[in-house]
Amino acid sequence: MKTLIVHAHPEPRSLNGALKDLAVSTLERAGHEVRVSDLYAMGWKAVVDAGDFGTSASSPLKVTADSGRAFDTGTLAPEVRAEQDKLLWADTVIFQFPLWWYTMPAILKGWFDRVFTYNFAYGVGEHSDVKYGERFGEGTLAGRRALLSVTVGGRESHYAERGVAGPIDDLLFPIQHGILYYPGLEVLPPFVLYSADRVDDDGFQDIAKAWEQRLLTLESTEPIAFRPQNSGDYEIPSLELKQGLEPPGRSGFRLHVRP
Amino acid sequence: MKTLIVHAHPEPRSLNGALKDLAVSTLERAGHEVRVSDLYAMGWKAVVDAGDFGTSASSPLKVTADSGRAFDTGTLAPEVRAEQDKLLWADTVIFQFPLWWYTMPAILKGWFDRVFTYNFAYGVGEHSDVKYGERFGEGTLAGRRALLSVTVGGRESHYAERGVAGPIDDLLFPIQHGILYYPGLEVLPPFVLYSADRVDDDGFQDIAKAWEQRLLTLESTEPIAFRPQNSGDYEIPSLELKQGLEPPGRSGFRLHVRP
Repeated sequence: MKTLIVHAHPEPRSLNGALKDLAVSTLERAGHEVRVSDLYAMGWKAVVDAGDFGTSASSPLKVTADSGRAFDTGTLAPEVRAEQDKLLWADTVIFQFPLWWYTMPAILKGWFDRVFTYNFAYGVGEHSDVKYGERFGEGTLAGRRALLSVTVGGRESHYAERGVAGPIDDLLFPIQHGILYYPGLEVLPPFVLYSADRVDDDGFQDIAKAWEQRLLTLESTEPIAFRPQNSGDYEIPSLELKQGLEPPGRSGFRLHVRP
Repeated sequence: MKTLIVHAHPEPRSLNGALKDLAVSTLERAGHEVRVSDLYAMGWKAVVDAGDFGTSASSPLKVTADSGRAFDTGTLAPEVRAEQDKLLWADTVIFQFPLWWYTMPAILKGWFDRVFTYNFAYGVGEHSDVKYGERFGEGTLAGRRALLSVTVGGRESHYAERGVAGPIDDLLFPIQHGILYYPGLEVLPPFVLYSADRVDDDGFQDIAKAWEQRLLTLESTEPIAFRPQNSGDYEIPSLELKQGLEPPGRSGFRLHVRP
């Protein structure tokens, strides 16, 4: 495998830092190539602004159109283009981050906001009344796989089916489906650690074993069965799931996973 | 009312900028006090790092503990403390932003990551086996109200009950429930504009009327009926919704809204 690890924690000596280091050593020892985007260490700028688009920035700024033109004409900021190139190099992408306020830290959101430009991650393919783009299962990153590795401060029961925070799969849906599956990445089931602030040395040994096990079986892990947008499951052009396709009792985000 | 508007768009001459300006003028004309945190204009730093915690930053950095100690001892970065003070001044908070990749832009996430510190927005109240904090309906910001005003590039049907993106209420749940309701804010139903890239002058006149109408009726608008954590609806200490409380057919995030 060629694996890109995108890492988003400010402290190298954190649980997240340890999991990132373990991923690098485990994958390299197994003969895989690994590259790391350590966003805090890189001083990654988290916000989209005119500086991203070079001479393609218009006035007034149009984020969508300008980012697409900058992508097409090679005037994107070099550090943004470098991340796009890493994605095109990789066949597997791991995101390592702590769940802060029920989603990813701002620095990682800013990686997606800046790197997933128009004409690269969205705006790809015909957009008309008979087709609405190559997305949700198709797109620039089709054929690649992604995995979230997430640490959570709260207890597992808070994120269970009836837990007060909401089920973890639903909390991660906007990332796994809305961001990763959108440009074509297949998404593997996430690796989630709860009560992350209370991990001691013994606890870490168990975690390390479980993480190594996941890393060494990535190639044989089945992705989440999200429904491809253009597979016939959705009405065109409304993109609503066709009547009768939902398994009994499912609603909301769960409609978009095949039974 | 004393209204704080937190605004997150890089272009003042955008639809988001126009909605923010209209909110200021409409509320002031009606006799309300308004303050604005225009995050791009302020050059808001989006990422949590040791610089936020001054002399309270430990090594290795512990984001939760250090932010709480910095809050308690007055060593938080002045710009973070200033935003906390604005929240304590306000009785109503409006967040104006475009939906980027199904959630808020990084700069706004970074506002929450930095301003919602431990001992201010979380870690408040007794945490034990009989109570797990004053949160989800209680906390530092209880008695105040919040409203999301969101522009969305895609079509409304994509965000409908069966739409490919997932229902808008579910996409906003981690923000409205997980971030805003957590420290006690009551959350009003969001103001959402779809197909935002295709708004013309006539369309904007209709939007402006609808937005003014929402702004002038904020005080009489019923908040979303999220379930208070400590009201008896949840098992202690697992914080799972008690059996039998769910309306028929509801699951996932919808369990946490009272019928």
